[in-house]
Amino acid sequence: MAFTLSQVAREIGAELKGNPDLEIADLAPIETAGPGQLSYIASGKFKKYLATTKASALIVFPGLESDKHSLLVVGDPYLGFAKAMRLFYRSFLPTTPGKHKTASIADDVEIPKDCYIGEFAVISRGARIGEGTEIHAGSFIGEDTVIGKSCRILQNVTLRERVTIGDNVVIYPGVVIGSDGFGYARTADGHLKIPQAGTVIIEDNVEIGAGTTIDRATLGETVIGKGAIIDNLVQIAHNCKIGPGAVICAQVGLAGSTIVGSNVILAGQVGVAGHLTIGEGAVIEAQSGVAGDVPPRAVHFGTPSREVYLAHKIEAGLNRLPDLIIRLKKLERLIEDK
Amino acid sequence: MAFTLSQVAREIGAELKGNPDLEIADLAPIETAGPGQLSYIASGKFKKYLATTKASALIVFPGLESDKHSLLVVGDPYLGFAKAMRLFYRSFLPTTPGKHKTASIADDVEIPKDCYIGEFAVISRGARIGEGTEIHAGSFIGEDTVIGKSCRILQNVTLRERVTIGDNVVIYPGVVIGSDGFGYARTADGHLKIPQAGTVIIEDNVEIGAGTTIDRATLGETVIGKGAIIDNLVQIAHNCKIGPGAVICAQVGLAGSTIVGSNVILAGQVGVAGHLTIGEGAVIEAQSGVAGDVPPRAVHFGTPSREVYLAHKIEAGLNRLPDLIIRLKKLERLIEDK
Amino acid sequence: MAFTLSQVAREIGAELKGNPDLEIADLAPIETAGPGQLSYIASGKFKKYLATTKASALIVFPGLESDKHSLLVVGDPYLGFAKAMRLFYRSFLPTTPGKHKTASIADDVEIPKDCYIGEFAVISRGARIGEGTEIHAGSFIGEDTVIGKSCRILQNVTLRERVTIGDNVVIYPGVVIGSDGFGYARTADGHLKIPQAGTVIIEDNVEIGAGTTIDRATLGETVIGKGAIIDNLVQIAHNCKIGPGAVICAQVGLAGSTIVGSNVILAGQVGVAGHLTIGEGAVIEAQSGVAGDVPPRAVHFGTPSREVYLAHKIEAGLNRLPDLIIRLKKLERLIEDK
Repeated sequence: MAFTLSQVAREIGAELKGNPDLEIADLAPIETAGPGQLSYIASGKFKKYLATTKASALIVFPGLESDKHSLLVVGDPYLGFAKAMRLFYRSFLPTTPGKHKTASIADDVEIPKDCYIGEFAVISRGARIGEGTEIHAGSFIGEDTVIGKSCRILQNVTLRERVTIGDNVVIYPGVVIGSDGFGYARTADGHLKIPQAGTVIIEDNVEIGAGTTIDRATLGETVIGKGAIIDNLVQIAHNCKIGPGAVICAQVGLAGSTIVGSNVILAGQVGVAGHLTIGEGAVIEAQSGVAGDVPPRAVHFGTPSREVYLAHKIEAGLNRLPDLIIRLKKLERLIEDK
Repeated sequence: MAFTLSQVAREIGAELKGNPDLEIADLAPIETAGPGQLSYIASGKFKKYLATTKASALIVFPGLESDKHSLLVVGDPYLGFAKAMRLFYRSFLPTTPGKHKTASIADDVEIPKDCYIGEFAVISRGARIGEGTEIHAGSFIGEDTVIGKSCRILQNVTLRERVTIGDNVVIYPGVVIGSDGFGYARTADGHLKIPQAGTVIIEDNVEIGAGTTIDRATLGETVIGKGAIIDNLVQIAHNCKIGPGAVICAQVGLAGSTIVGSNVILAGQVGVAGHLTIGEGAVIEAQSGVAGDVPPRAVHFGTPSREVYLAHKIEAGLNRLPDLIIRLKKLERLIEDK
Repeated sequence: MAFTLSQVAREIGAELKGNPDLEIADLAPIETAGPGQLSYIASGKFKKYLATTKASALIVFPGLESDKHSLLVVGDPYLGFAKAMRLFYRSFLPTTPGKHKTASIADDVEIPKDCYIGEFAVISRGARIGEGTEIHAGSFIGEDTVIGKSCRILQNVTLRERVTIGDNVVIYPGVVIGSDGFGYARTADGHLKIPQAGTVIIEDNVEIGAGTTIDRATLGETVIGKGAIIDNLVQIAHNCKIGPGAVICAQVGLAGSTIVGSNVILAGQVGVAGHLTIGEGAVIEAQSGVAGDVPPRAVHFGTPSREVYLAHKIEAGLNRLPDLIIRLKKLERLIEDK
């Protein structure tokens, strides 16, 4: 499916500099794009490719010029690229609605006509599935679990009992939601398990990456707020509350009862201790370990995490530490000699 | 199912201060509890809620007073809460014994009458399943694998061949036990795979969290000791031995042949190198990287991990490092000027 | 299946010192080996076991002597052990070719005669499966996905649509390949998902550990090079390129578009930021966080990672940091007093 450059410009809201009738066959990364392809330069860091890319057209930020390419100028080229990708592609193969004959669906469950239920999917008693929702092969939906409209539950997912999923939620393969929280009390005879009687609520428009685990609450709910996006292999413990729009990158781990504010960004492999609050809009840099509350809009780094300005000053200081030891020793000798 | 406060007091072994006939409908977290609900204050940190909580009754530690609440006084309120939770709730939906018609069970496998075998579960040749054990939907039990009594193997679990599971073991969704250890020898032609001919033994009363992976031994066994509790997304490599009662939090990773003593606590995201010994009762704080043996009952922090007293002194020192550099420079100038 | 020591010596290319007719029943770890068993001493670190091991024979490096054991002397005892293991054992139970009657195979898919397709496996339209390949129970093969010859896809694996797998690839249980990359653009209304239109290519002889996730590219391909070995619970983001022979240990996480050179070693729990290049043969030590490009054959440690010589000097300096503060204070007082 090809589009003219002027069609793309209209779709992404760009100013067009060049040939409006240029036919764009598809998009490609800047390094490999060739004739008939559209690519993008999101920031100054990638400007160097302007001289070498063989793309016919580029989505660029204002001020970038080229006499070899047609340009689509927008304020945010990455957003422009996202919109162009959505014009040319879709993330998923189109799914023909229907129930595969091998699926196991409890007698009391009603499947709306436009749903897709894949091979060996299991839908347990009391579960409710919204219109247009897809439950793919090998996924398990527990008793009394409720799933909203237009969700995509991909392959081999486990949603345990009494979990609630909103509308337009995407859950990638291998995810486990509603497993027991890690709650035990110490006794002389060993660990006494605390029943995990609560549940999980996933609000609308959330995406949850492959292999991620989100535990049910001890009492009450673990909550993933509207529009939050969660990457692969993330661990979210019992009773956490993730705010709307939060971004949680791969392999992050949150201990129990922690509150993550709206639009917070937790970069890859971050760990957060239990019973903490990360204020809205805060950013925690990769691999940090958060051991105390973080104020709104703060930027933190390190284990334990510190305000980034101090953390980076410490990092710079560490490079000089071996030399500091030598300089201190020298001073001590000088003083002794006097 | 409601209980009077005196019934709860008897069950958890508490001294009752207040109305013994107060009817308790259920338990709730301290922040959200309301009339007719029981909550708890586990430590001084949560004492602030005493003034505001709307719970009718509270489990508290000795010395805490309130004229607004009936109190259940115990030495360890968290243990008291655990016991009360076990009175009111259970972790799992009750399961009606039986074999689902879609399960695939090898001809030579005998399933005791009180077991539950879920949808699309696979039980391979030579496997043995103990009385009262549940194998939930989509789980795979490999050839000659032996599972004890009263175990719960939840959904989409993979237990490969020749693995041994004790009694009362709970394995949460998505766990993989008995996959090949990561063993290869270098050759001029690339990595030569070393067959992983050993197995895994999970002793009685162990719990293993969602998405965790426990590899089979190269030779001999990988062992998880009696009553150990393991959280989600943990990696335990070939030939590790985990002692009885150990606590392994989420996203911990252990390299091959490491020995973890009884009652050791490894906090979230800890990594431990191979062929090490962590002595019994040691505690490794979150995100630490253990690069050498740890003595019994030691407390360690950092990467590489150090005795916590030194590690925390270093952390405090780091906050002062940028200032130290300035002070040293100043001293050098002073000395030069003299 | 027993072998004489001379048979083993021939197989592993060792010089035999001792009884060539000694019958070896099997192999065992050095600590537990007994009469009739063969073990090995891979390095000086394990020499201490020479005095105590009850093994009848040992694979050792040149220069090691024993009057209690028959010896097989080789340049690389670990490689010798690997070869002996391959003589005595195989990693997998032998699989009888055939299609299990419960497998769901699309009408247009041809299964070569010597393949194994397990219980409840799903093979979707347009998929192609090479000769001798095994697809085990509960695994899902997406539309138009192509798998080469002699692969082993173990249990509960998810390979999404349009993924390409080479020959002799082993994929352990619970792996997810081809899930959507984590790509979103910010808008005033929340995160706008970028379709992930690319795919994943796994080249020949790759092994991928349990629970690992490898995302499909936004455009183009995520590539795992020939002979690379990947451990459990690893996260590889969209558009990464992993070079041939690379070793990626458990719980490593790579952000998007990062290039890992051939034969690179990433130790356990390492994190690598996006759009970086790690040069061929580089080694990144455990738990490091790589924040910039790494030159070929460099050895790095720390978060952010530094050249290991500097990183270890800094580590040593940290142990002295609390003392440095005291010494600096003392100097300042001395100067003041003068």
